[in-house]
Amino acid sequence: MDMAFVEGGVTAPKGFLAAGVHCGIKKYKKDLALIYSEVLATAAGVFTTNKVKAAPVMITMENLCDGKIQAIVANSGNANACTGERGLKDAREMAELAGKKLGLNPRNVAVASTGVIGVYLPMDKIRRGIEWCAESLSAGGSSDAALAIMTTDTFKKEMAVKLSIAGEEITIGGIAKGSGMIHPNMATMLCFITTDASIEERALKKALKDATKKSFNMISVDGDTSTNDMVVIMANGLAKNHTIAEGTKEYELFYSGLERICIEFAKMIARDGEGATKFVEITVKNAKDEESAVKAARAISKSCLVKTAIFGEDANWGRVMCAVGYSGIDLNPDLVDIYISSKGRELMLAENGSGVEFSEEEAKKILSEKEIKITVDLKQGGYSATAWGCDLSYDYVKINGSYRT
Amino acid sequence: MDMAFVEGGVTAPKGFLAAGVHCGIKKYKKDLALIYSEVLATAAGVFTTNKVKAAPVMITMENLCDGKIQAIVANSGNANACTGERGLKDAREMAELAGKKLGLNPRNVAVASTGVIGVYLPMDKIRRGIEWCAESLSAGGSSDAALAIMTTDTFKKEMAVKLSIAGEEITIGGIAKGSGMIHPNMATMLCFITTDASIEERALKKALKDATKKSFNMISVDGDTSTNDMVVIMANGLAKNHTIAEGTKEYELFYSGLERICIEFAKMIARDGEGATKFVEITVKNAKDEESAVKAARAISKSCLVKTAIFGEDANWGRVMCAVGYSGIDLNPDLVDIYISSKGRELMLAENGSGVEFSEEEAKKILSEKEIKITVDLKQGGYSATAWGCDLSYDYVKINGSYRT
Repeated sequence: MDMAFVEGGVTAPKGFLAAGVHCGIKKYKKDLALIYSEVLATAAGVFTTNKVKAAPVMITMENLCDGKIQAIVANSGNANACTGERGLKDAREMAELAGKKLGLNPRNVAVASTGVIGVYLPMDKIRRGIEWCAESLSAGGSSDAALAIMTTDTFKKEMAVKLSIAGEEITIGGIAKGSGMIHPNMATMLCFITTDASIEERALKKALKDATKKSFNMISVDGDTSTNDMVVIMANGLAKNHTIAEGTKEYELFYSGLERICIEFAKMIARDGEGATKFVEITVKNAKDEESAVKAARAISKSCLVKTAIFGEDANWGRVMCAVGYSGIDLNPDLVDIYISSKGRELMLAENGSGVEFSEEEAKKILSEKEIKITVDLKQGGYSATAWGCDLSYDYVKINGSYRT
Repeated sequence: MDMAFVEGGVTAPKGFLAAGVHCGIKKYKKDLALIYSEVLATAAGVFTTNKVKAAPVMITMENLCDGKIQAIVANSGNANACTGERGLKDAREMAELAGKKLGLNPRNVAVASTGVIGVYLPMDKIRRGIEWCAESLSAGGSSDAALAIMTTDTFKKEMAVKLSIAGEEITIGGIAKGSGMIHPNMATMLCFITTDASIEERALKKALKDATKKSFNMISVDGDTSTNDMVVIMANGLAKNHTIAEGTKEYELFYSGLERICIEFAKMIARDGEGATKFVEITVKNAKDEESAVKAARAISKSCLVKTAIFGEDANWGRVMCAVGYSGIDLNPDLVDIYISSKGRELMLAENGSGVEFSEEEAKKILSEKEIKITVDLKQGGYSATAWGCDLSYDYVKINGSYRT
């Protein structure tokens, strides 16, 4: 497929502006971001499955009901979660303030927050911040916006791809944040995606939902699912392509581009897991159905014992086997093969459910790398799934032992 | 009720002998245990729910089919899991060797193992060890047996209670091990319980199952469920009491004693969680049904973010709220109250789903204790559940980063 990574992140597609400022929620770092489309955009969102949903999640779900938004306002440093009626009022006010400054109906503004739970938003600072953001919107503002949504992230996450769909060029871009509380079914991670493609609302919704399943739902840092996650996409149609509908070749092309962006963001988030020293890709293959492959891959990726073994560079394949065993899938343990690999080296650790003799030296070489793959072959059918994660280090404990204070 | 803790552990009930020796599976410590009843005992077992079951688990399940055993042989240092046909043969041989030495049908011997996964048992050492064990069986051997089943445990776990049931005195005793991989639905934990009570097989099975649900299934160290867990009980009837049947007052008394033993062992195991510096008791109250109370309490007890906050002595109640939110229960977040307490001090952190102003100093005082309670009031109904766990410390990572090597 004709797809190329380009610069510009969330403002790479036509007609999008962005900004990020420091308004004082955090001590020194940028903490308020705004993304704006020059025209009303078709939009879709995917939200946390946590029953405790933060106020901005509820407001954004409401505002996305009609499938249209034109701006996204997001803050870091405070999650506006577990803040009751006042939290809802504050989230609504964020949409109103942005709407007023940009001349939009507040119902066309999405709101997002990330940070500490259970503390009211400092609305005086947010009010000021939204003004500043609106005044500094620019086509070069993606990087500032990406910085402004970071919490414990150690690097900013932005990306864009250009695709040719039936001879017409479209661009998809985005920014994301995520590092702590990351888990299948989404945990404090935010991802805002923009595209100038013209696409039907139904098709956009389906594409986002499917791409999320293959990407953000397949990463795990610590197994906790946050109150604040959301992925929102805006498609403003300014590429003037023939409107994309479900079930067409054009849809497939658009979907590949979107999935690629989502997978790359998911991998960045796993790589940036709190305290992570290693990035792990887990593939479960030859499962009897897709659900089994997904469940097994996710169970391995979130096992604290597998994660600490990876941190300790210990080829403890029994813990991988054990995680597959409790993942809830139907399984014949006596068929399972397990491999580790990195940088083109691959080593079999177990065959037909039992350990094989392997070189500890070779295992150590593979596990000393920063990027490690674990492959589990169930030999039961033809379905595969890939999940991503990271190791569990002393620093995870350090970061999370004193996050709030 | 008339119940008293007594000395003697697994050999406290009449007619039980035990031994524990060092046979060389581990470098220096005791690694092989034997428990023997002078007469054939009614028996029941509860086993890991992991689909990958270690060989000894499969053999013991088989041997318990007829509800009778007379001895238990257990080793530490090697789990005999993921060892295929050879593992099954080895586990069977352990039962045969013990049977031969003790003059028992090998089908009346239970087998258990705990330790590293995927390595074959050193059968020459085990053969020798079983001989030694059989020769050193004694009524004072409980402590040696308790030591011989330890892995990363930092203290030995043994206990016994005496009860008076309808004027007849019976004793229940046991030994247990568990520290790593502990999680609801049981993880490498072993518990062997003996009693001189005479009790019907069906009643014994039900009592063990119910007591396990309230105790071992309510503890969590790291969310991983092991391949090797088992709880086995032997009731040899030597107390000569009137045989206990289900649905009687005598059954209720026996059950209380057994539940008490199981809960105390479960708490010991949570307290001895790998790297744990604090013991945490979590009570969820006023849930709309028991299942919801259990689910919510377990979700909190296994949340890595709650655990690291406890380690850091940080009153981050938002993480407790968040865990309740993703526990899968039906919930009205706007009703939830959260408290922490220790040593008689109690502090409300959240009311009706939102944070309340609380003294950080008081919170710090409570969280600086070694034993902490978290109480969550759902205000939806009348059901409660209690779970136990520990914090997540640097040492957890250290212990598990290099367990195998």
